[in-house]
Amino acid sequence: MKKVLFATTALIATASMAAAEVKISGYGRFGLDYNDRNAVSGTNGIGAPANGISETTITSRLRLQFDMSTETDGGVTLGARFRAQAESRDNVAGTAGFNGARFYASYGGFTLGVGNIIGAIEGMPGLYLETNSAGIGIDGAGFHSLVTNVNNSFFDWDAYDSVGAGANGIEVLYKSGAFAAHISYSETNARAATFRFDPTTGLAVPVPATPRTNRTAANVAYTFGDWTAALAVQSSDRIGEDKTVFTIAGNIGQFGVRFAAADNDGIKKYGIYGNMDIGTASNILLFVTSEDAADAGAIAQGRDNRDSTAGNDTGGEGESYGIHYAYDLGGGASFEAGAVRSSNDQTQVQAGVFFKF
Amino acid sequence: MKKVLFATTALIATASMAAAEVKISGYGRFGLDYNDRNAVSGTNGIGAPANGISETTITSRLRLQFDMSTETDGGVTLGARFRAQAESRDNVAGTAGFNGARFYASYGGFTLGVGNIIGAIEGMPGLYLETNSAGIGIDGAGFHSLVTNVNNSFFDWDAYDSVGAGANGIEVLYKSGAFAAHISYSETNARAATFRFDPTTGLAVPVPATPRTNRTAANVAYTFGDWTAALAVQSSDRIGEDKTVFTIAGNIGQFGVRFAAADNDGIKKYGIYGNMDIGTASNILLFVTSEDAADAGAIAQGRDNRDSTAGNDTGGEGESYGIHYAYDLGGGASFEAGAVRSSNDQTQVQAGVFFKF
Amino acid sequence: MKKVLFATTALIATASMAAAEVKISGYGRFGLDYNDRNAVSGTNGIGAPANGISETTITSRLRLQFDMSTETDGGVTLGARFRAQAESRDNVAGTAGFNGARFYASYGGFTLGVGNIIGAIEGMPGLYLETNSAGIGIDGAGFHSLVTNVNNSFFDWDAYDSVGAGANGIEVLYKSGAFAAHISYSETNARAATFRFDPTTGLAVPVPATPRTNRTAANVAYTFGDWTAALAVQSSDRIGEDKTVFTIAGNIGQFGVRFAAADNDGIKKYGIYGNMDIGTASNILLFVTSEDAADAGAIAQGRDNRDSTAGNDTGGEGESYGIHYAYDLGGGASFEAGAVRSSNDQTQVQAGVFFKF
Repeated sequence: MKKVLFATTALIATASMAAAEVKISGYGRFGLDYNDRNAVSGTNGIGAPANGISETTITSRLRLQFDMSTETDGGVTLGARFRAQAESRDNVAGTAGFNGARFYASYGGFTLGVGNIIGAIEGMPGLYLETNSAGIGIDGAGFHSLVTNVNNSFFDWDAYDSVGAGANGIEVLYKSGAFAAHISYSETNARAATFRFDPTTGLAVPVPATPRTNRTAANVAYTFGDWTAALAVQSSDRIGEDKTVFTIAGNIGQFGVRFAAADNDGIKKYGIYGNMDIGTASNILLFVTSEDAADAGAIAQGRDNRDSTAGNDTGGEGESYGIHYAYDLGGGASFEAGAVRSSNDQTQVQAGVFFKF
Repeated sequence: MKKVLFATTALIATASMAAAEVKISGYGRFGLDYNDRNAVSGTNGIGAPANGISETTITSRLRLQFDMSTETDGGVTLGARFRAQAESRDNVAGTAGFNGARFYASYGGFTLGVGNIIGAIEGMPGLYLETNSAGIGIDGAGFHSLVTNVNNSFFDWDAYDSVGAGANGIEVLYKSGAFAAHISYSETNARAATFRFDPTTGLAVPVPATPRTNRTAANVAYTFGDWTAALAVQSSDRIGEDKTVFTIAGNIGQFGVRFAAADNDGIKKYGIYGNMDIGTASNILLFVTSEDAADAGAIAQGRDNRDSTAGNDTGGEGESYGIHYAYDLGGGASFEAGAVRSSNDQTQVQAGVFFKF
Repeated sequence: MKKVLFATTALIATASMAAAEVKISGYGRFGLDYNDRNAVSGTNGIGAPANGISETTITSRLRLQFDMSTETDGGVTLGARFRAQAESRDNVAGTAGFNGARFYASYGGFTLGVGNIIGAIEGMPGLYLETNSAGIGIDGAGFHSLVTNVNNSFFDWDAYDSVGAGANGIEVLYKSGAFAAHISYSETNARAATFRFDPTTGLAVPVPATPRTNRTAANVAYTFGDWTAALAVQSSDRIGEDKTVFTIAGNIGQFGVRFAAADNDGIKKYGIYGNMDIGTASNILLFVTSEDAADAGAIAQGRDNRDSTAGNDTGGEGESYGIHYAYDLGGGASFEAGAVRSSNDQTQVQAGVFFKF
């Protein structure tokens, strides 16, 4: 019944048009997630009413990715990335379908990106954890480790969107030896107004069209020996999204160490990160971040973060801690486990498996 | 213009990571469907008002399936199944998009499944017809042959969902020689409340969020010679979904015979099934099922099935009959035709072609 | 990380089932679009209020296409075409997902198509421009060159739908030597009634179910030497969709010339088209179309086209002009640029790149 089997790094090409190709890749991951923000009845740990979801749920994601490209006679590579993804978190299924495509043209050290762009904040070195989920556990567990995620402002920068259309942006990436730079600009695609159901009134409530957001961002990075330092900035026409981010990461013997700091339009956050290989197959990672109180300007904007305790993924003043353990199972698969306690007093513990294809 | 052609059982692999692979397979089917529940004007055969759909329509489905897997150094296979499907039935197009993924880990005779699981009722031997549609004709023609489909309760068990997110479940399958067992548990993903249009009032009517359903099911099967017997049970927290199902199927010379019986929480149904190869390329299949009157418990639940005549796919007390003919055209293709008369006095006749790829 | 690379015209097959195959192909295109119907504030060139969209936006599309087929022992090819597509035009993202499938069975010169059919108007030779977008520029720039697109009636014929379910139709194509014919019939799939948000009232407004449309169309084409002439007709049960179309196209030395004329149920439109290769890699194309005033019958239907100036893609009495330039970059890629001035006084200018895979 299964007819076609094709696998890693196989290249089938003919002389006539060897440049054009489609690569299929992706990953699967699944495991258990304990999240103390969920509660079937009563209230959760911080007094919020129950959301009817078990504290322990299955978290899973399947990503199927198509990378298509060709090369012109002049040596320019033209290509695109297209992704379909299904996932379930906290017992809610995400939309499973294709996203918007990112198009690119690259020549030498230059790459021009168009459409569902990566973005210069997202693309800076040293921002995400060095794990398969780029966060803690199986699904990132809230990504509290990022210094750019602060009180009620998580992921407020352009990033390649795996399930939606993404930013309708344009970006230029340049790399020459130890130096790399990245500039991005987006004018987000409009989304039509729609409705949602208000369970309190039982009525249809209009959800207004998404406001267009213009974001400009840039990063520069330099690698010297085992170390890479990077600086990124973002300017946005939406309140609270201006950012300045600095990271430096490197190796000291078998230890990987990293430091990151960001000013999120008046809310400062920094983090220190370390990971260590144990034997030939294991790696353990630790992090701590500290989010400062909002400054006067941010408070004037209504972004006071001193008592942010409600909901998931909100951040707030204080420290977040996390630990992650990965064991390489071979064949592109690994066992992954982690725990995080965030500055909004949320605890998540996850364990499961991850496999690439 | 068409660049990539790849086909059956081709394996392209390199030494570096031979375990990871993606298989692409699927099927297409299309044909004509006569369904006496449709009527362009007036009333249909049982007095229900016309739904504006021709009695004869095109029925079609295209299924495109991705099976990705890898093998760890320890010999555990990790994988997932992901499916995109487009279809049209009764002149209404289904949603065309990806479904939720089923993830699995298998080792020896054990398989752990997670996400959009198969389910132990769905996965029991001897439940479905031995045809390409697993029912009568091109698209199953209502699947009246299943002893688990009774009055107003069709497909009320966990099954791998080809178009939606499916159950967010977990299951264990075990097979050792002639013995097989399967246990499944699901806590269905929540779906957000939404709206539908009420043509009578012209108003938006809230469609409440899907209630979470917890289902536990198990089956055991044993094969002795040419015969396989299976027993399955389901316990659900939704009314009327508790089930006990027994099947036995085998071969007597050139004849395939099967018997199935189920108690659907107070509504008993049994079926007998036979099929016979004719020459080298043809097969003919016949079935009859009988649905008993609901017992006192089921009637008390409001599930009285004595006069169920409205709508499609509702079952009801009485007998259903079906006949199916398949002719193998070679190359994975076949001609398929069938007719069914169900206990709710609905008649469907279908003919068309089916091809695998 | 990227595991599978496969490319043009590679055929991997085994003896056991060589007939079944899946081909993956598609294209990407992206560039800039200047459209004077967009305006961020104030009014656009014809006095309509601003739609909040920049006059210059990124236009892009990625198309990923799956062609699956098999061949029966009797030599009949059974297959289907399935497509996923993401695009952004005028800063609005299209739906990214799979469409309805077109199924087919072909034998000798005959092909039977079912489902999301091509349609006999869409499939006639000489209707579209000879460019990669089949229109002007990167995304067709409104397709004003088609003689079948007139005042408020654009694309009112059956065509393979790249993003929706398409027509639920049936068609027969025949080709024998210089002669070709195509007959199509559709009964469009119903779409359920839904809602949209009315920004003026802030209320939910019902969008009625799509009315079923029955269309019958046919074309015949004959090739004599370097020339092909074609005649097509359409009869529809929706007002204004009856059509008669004639085209003739051929080559005079290095020049390609074409003439097309259509009567769109009382609104006549004709066009002349010429293109010329320049050197080995360039091609330049010019067109002019003229839309006549609506006749008395069309005016009586409310389809008066004398002063149609509002909105995009509406046509109207008068002339449309366009120019397009393409430069072959090799590897299936090209540079594309074009400009169009339409009879409704709309100007669009586009430039970008196109690549096949």
